Amino acid sequence: MTHAAAIDKLVVVGVGLIGGSFALALRQAGAVRRVVGVGRTASNLERARARGIVDEVVTLDAPWAAHARDADVVLLATPVAQFPSLFRALAPHVGPRTVLTDAGSTKEDVVAAAREALSNALPRFVPAHPIAGSERAGADAADANLFHERRVILTPLRETDPHATERVTALWQTTGARVSALAPARHDRVLAAVSHLPHLLAFAFVDAIARRDDADALFEHAGSGLRDFTRIAASSPEMWRDIALANRAALLAELDLYRGALDAVVRALEQGDGGTLEAMFARAARSRRAWSLAESYPRDAAGDDA
Amino acid sequence: MTHAAAIDKLVVVGVGLIGGSFALALRQAGAVRRVVGVGRTASNLERARARGIVDEVVTLDAPWAAHARDADVVLLATPVAQFPSLFRALAPHVGPRTVLTDAGSTKEDVVAAAREALSNALPRFVPAHPIAGSERAGADAADANLFHERRVILTPLRETDPHATERVTALWQTTGARVSALAPARHDRVLAAVSHLPHLLAFAFVDAIARRDDADALFEHAGSGLRDFTRIAASSPEMWRDIALANRAALLAELDLYRGALDAVVRALEQGDGGTLEAMFARAARSRRAWSLAESYPRDAAGDDA
Repeated sequence: MTHAAAIDKLVVVGVGLIGGSFALALRQAGAVRRVVGVGRTASNLERARARGIVDEVVTLDAPWAAHARDADVVLLATPVAQFPSLFRALAPHVGPRTVLTDAGSTKEDVVAAAREALSNALPRFVPAHPIAGSERAGADAADANLFHERRVILTPLRETDPHATERVTALWQTTGARVSALAPARHDRVLAAVSHLPHLLAFAFVDAIARRDDADALFEHAGSGLRDFTRIAASSPEMWRDIALANRAALLAELDLYRGALDAVVRALEQGDGGTLEAMFARAARSRRAWSLAESYPRDAAGDDA
Repeated sequence: MTHAAAIDKLVVVGVGLIGGSFALALRQAGAVRRVVGVGRTASNLERARARGIVDEVVTLDAPWAAHARDADVVLLATPVAQFPSLFRALAPHVGPRTVLTDAGSTKEDVVAAAREALSNALPRFVPAHPIAGSERAGADAADANLFHERRVILTPLRETDPHATERVTALWQTTGARVSALAPARHDRVLAAVSHLPHLLAFAFVDAIARRDDADALFEHAGSGLRDFTRIAASSPEMWRDIALANRAALLAELDLYRGALDAVVRALEQGDGGTLEAMFARAARSRRAWSLAESYPRDAAGDDA
C-alpha cells in the first residue's frame, strides 16, 4: 500500500465488466487493500473471487449494505434501473467517511435518485461515467487495462464535498483514465448525441435488415464497412433499454435533429442534387478524418467497402 | 507463366486502390505477363510503374483505347461516372478475344452505359463489383492481398459470353476472392441496403455533429463505439456522390424503410415503451452476433461504449 490514492476498503456493487475492471486496476496498482463484491448471482461473485478481483462476496439478498459502514468507497456498477433501490438500501449505512460513486451511463436520473434517497450522505456521492466498455459482460470480462487512456466524466453536484470528488478523481486516474467534469444535464445531452443516438440508429438498422425475408442474403453481401457501422448493435439490450428510457428527452431531441438531416438527404437524392450530396459528404469526411488525427485509437485504419 | 488462369496482356484503366491491387495480385500469382496502366494523371501512373504494378503507362488524353486491340482483359476501375465515355472510347478498339470488365459499385447504370456504347463487344463485357476497399486511394495504396477472402459479385447479362464470365471469375479467384453472381438490379438493391444506405447514414450523422457549435466538445466525449459507427464517413465524397446518384431509386426505397424504423423508435420512446425497445434491441443484437460468428473478420472484438 504505497500508492498516493490508496484506500483500505472498496465495495463494488455489480462485479461485471466495469465494476470488476475498476477493482482489478486498483488492486494491480496497489491502491486498495480489501475489496468486497456485491451482486445478484453467487456464481459470478465466486468467479470474481477466483480471479482475485474481490476478497469477500455478498449477494444482494443478504444484508450487504452494512458493508458501507467502514468502506472508503462504494461503487455502484449495475444497470442504472437498479440504482434507486440500491441508494435506498445504502442510505442508513453510509459511514461518516464513506464516499459513494457510480458508473452509470446516464446522470440526471442517477442524480435524482440519489437526491431522493441519500439525504445526509448526498455530499459524499460523486456521480461518474467511465466511457469504456465491450460487448463482453460479467466478472470474466474484467480487465485491469480497460480504462487506460479512456475518459471518465464526473458530474458533481453543488452539494458534493470537494474531498469526495478528489478521492474519486484520484482512483480513476490510478486506473489510467483521463478524468473531466460536466454538469449532469450537459453530460446527458452530450452522450445522447455521441453515444445513445448512434446505438439506437445501429440497433434500428440491424433490426430492419434482420426482419426482412432476404436477411441472410443481405448480410452475406456485406463488407467490413457494415461490420464497423453495426458493431454497437451487438450491445446489451437490457442496458440500452435502461439508457434510452433514462435519457429519453435528450434522445428524442437528437432523433428529431437526425431525422431532419435525413430529410435533407432524401430531398437532395430526389432532386438528383449531386452538389448538395457531395458537399455534405465532404464536410463529414473532413470532420471524421480530423477527429481520427486528433486522437489515435487502435484499429483505426478500417476498410470502407463501396 | 504457369498459372491456370494466366493471361498475356492486361489493361487497367484507373490504377488506384482497386485497379492497382488487382494488377498486383495477378502479377504476384504469375497470372499476367504484361500490364498497361491508363489514367488521368501521369504522376500516379509513374508511381504505379515504380512499384512494379504496371509495365507501361498511357494517360487518358493519349490514344489509350488502341491498347484494347490485343489485350486479353481490360478492367475499368475509375469512378463510375466516367464509364460512359470510357466505353465509347473503347468500343471501336475491342479486339475479337478481348474481355472487358469493371469494378464499379453500382451495376444497373454500368450495364445501361455498356449496352448503349459497346454494340458487338457487349457479349464480352462482364460487369463485376469487388466488395473491398479502404479510405486510402491511388497506386500507393495498392495491395496484392486486398481481395483475399473478399466477395466479388459478377452481374453477367443474358448476352454475356460464358467464356468471358469464366475468364473474369478465374482472375478474381486468383486474387483470393470468393466470386458469386447476382442480376444487376438485385445487386443494386442488395448493395443499397448493406452498403449505400449505411454510408449515407454515417455521412449524415457526422455532418450533423460537425455543423453544431459544440462539435469539438461532442467529438471529445465520444468513444470507440462512435469511431466504428462513423468510420465509413471518412470515405471519398466524389465516389459516394456518384454511387448515391447512380443507385438513387434503390437508395430512396431503403431510406424510406429506415425512416419508418426510426419512426417506430420515436413512438416507443415517446410512450416510454421499454418492452418494444428491448425487443428491438434484442433482435438486432442476436442478428449482429450471429453474423459475427458466421464469418470471422479481423478486428471484430470491438468495444461498445455506453
